Amino acid sequence: MTRPGLPRLLAETRSGVLLFSITPPKRSTAEERIKEIAEVTLHRLSGLDLDGLILYDIDDESDRNPVERPFPFLATLDPARYYETHLSAWPQPVIIYRCVGKYAEDELSDWMRDADPERVLGVFVGPSSGGKSVRTGLRRAQELRAAVRPELPLGAVVIGERRDEHLRMLAKQDRGASFFISQVIYHVNETKNLISDYYYECRAREVQPRTIIFTLSLCGSLKTLEFLRWLGVDVPRWLENALRHSADPLTESYKHCLDIARDLRDYCEHLGVPYGFNVENVSIRKTEIEATTRLAADVAALLGR
Amino acid sequence: MTRPGLPRLLAETRSGVLLFSITPPKRSTAEERIKEIAEVTLHRLSGLDLDGLILYDIDDESDRNPVERPFPFLATLDPARYYETHLSAWPQPVIIYRCVGKYAEDELSDWMRDADPERVLGVFVGPSSGGKSVRTGLRRAQELRAAVRPELPLGAVVIGERRDEHLRMLAKQDRGASFFISQVIYHVNETKNLISDYYYECRAREVQPRTIIFTLSLCGSLKTLEFLRWLGVDVPRWLENALRHSADPLTESYKHCLDIARDLRDYCEHLGVPYGFNVENVSIRKTEIEATTRLAADVAALLGR
Repeated sequence: MTRPGLPRLLAETRSGVLLFSITPPKRSTAEERIKEIAEVTLHRLSGLDLDGLILYDIDDESDRNPVERPFPFLATLDPARYYETHLSAWPQPVIIYRCVGKYAEDELSDWMRDADPERVLGVFVGPSSGGKSVRTGLRRAQELRAAVRPELPLGAVVIGERRDEHLRMLAKQDRGASFFISQVIYHVNETKNLISDYYYECRAREVQPRTIIFTLSLCGSLKTLEFLRWLGVDVPRWLENALRHSADPLTESYKHCLDIARDLRDYCEHLGVPYGFNVENVSIRKTEIEATTRLAADVAALLGR
Repeated sequence: MTRPGLPRLLAETRSGVLLFSITPPKRSTAEERIKEIAEVTLHRLSGLDLDGLILYDIDDESDRNPVERPFPFLATLDPARYYETHLSAWPQPVIIYRCVGKYAEDELSDWMRDADPERVLGVFVGPSSGGKSVRTGLRRAQELRAAVRPELPLGAVVIGERRDEHLRMLAKQDRGASFFISQVIYHVNETKNLISDYYYECRAREVQPRTIIFTLSLCGSLKTLEFLRWLGVDVPRWLENALRHSADPLTESYKHCLDIARDLRDYCEHLGVPYGFNVENVSIRKTEIEATTRLAADVAALLGR
């Protein structure tokens, strides 16, 4: 029996979804090099049993945090264009992120109309701060989808560090979101608080909880740690200590990511909240990229695949 | 090969120590009833593979918290007298808690001089708030022990919720403490922060970390939860949600206590910090007492016994 495609897995809130996420190459990259990167990426992912691929849409978030960004911001290729032009050999569905504030309403509507809902899913991301001037707001983007392309499966981001995030999730659900993808998780306790609040609020409202996909990301260096912090990821002190003192922070964080995955899997199974994982790589170092691929395989094994 | 006694296990910082703790009966209890309670307790514990028994010394801590105490304070028998009079059949060492502020210096010195350091260990507890008037302060009690009975193994309490607790632990170590017993733990993350801070500080000072014994306690009702909160125990929101909504909070908290034990065991093994567990019962309900005995057996199994 073949496993159903990602849209159906999410529509039926089946647990155990496994995704991998990538950031498209920088815009300044030469065409030949982009082709090469895409090929290497597809080759690396071909050995993994994934339900889909996430393509991020990177926004300049310098407004989010007055502190200098640890890694400089560089504009990246449009994720939908990168997918169409260079990843057409990818056999599974893709989830295209959209930082909606970057786009005019027409651009968003056109893209949604053209997307094949069997192969493409969307995730709308709102502006990183309230003061930012946007071309399309999150609420408006959700309305556009409802009007022009309700068939397109829509996801939303979830940030465990925010208070009352479970109420925000339910509001997004009311406006069409049918699954959630978390920010990078390093703090299992905060995440369990969120899952718990969400679960009991769904129960009180007699609403079916939607799949939450937890993002795991290795942290192979203090620079990466600093970057995660800058993004607002809450890293527990004991883990920071470990990464700071370890001769091999990559191995340390590998162990921790697997522990997180096991813990969240068990917790969601116990409560009965549909869940999945997204394995992400934020580094460009070869050792970290390879370790991330191994991590995805280990998480697949945790999910019984 | 027989297992070494508790004083040696702690002196050699061997991991996997297992203790059980009890609160002596109330002072108002009839002599016959006290005897009965002691017999039932010893019978219940006889099936467990324990390294020792903790006897608490209860102080009126109403100064700790202006909110009304969920369970009323009732004076209990002196732990050393209860041990000598009613628990002499107990074959293992005992750890006698001393809320030092309750005692005159002479009383403490006399007790220490009489105690057999092969069978009795002490834990000094300071006053529950700074404003409390005390007969002997914690620092002074530590000095007395150094002067009159340095052979008596001395432990200290550790409260993961306090900031810089690892520095306090090292200061207590300098004043003679050779092991630590935690307050009830419901928040693994805070506890890992503390273990981590302690471990790296020991490493920086080139000091051997001493055994930390983690106290586990079931929470079978919202009333017990309220009491734990009153005592200053930090209960994660997701666990509070679970206990609040569960038809069977005892089973829910049982699962969680075992998860905590497994998690802390793995974490301490990973870092190389000597550890142990103390299983405590704060309730008088029969189902909870029985479940606590089962929990101790399950924790023993986790420790490979």
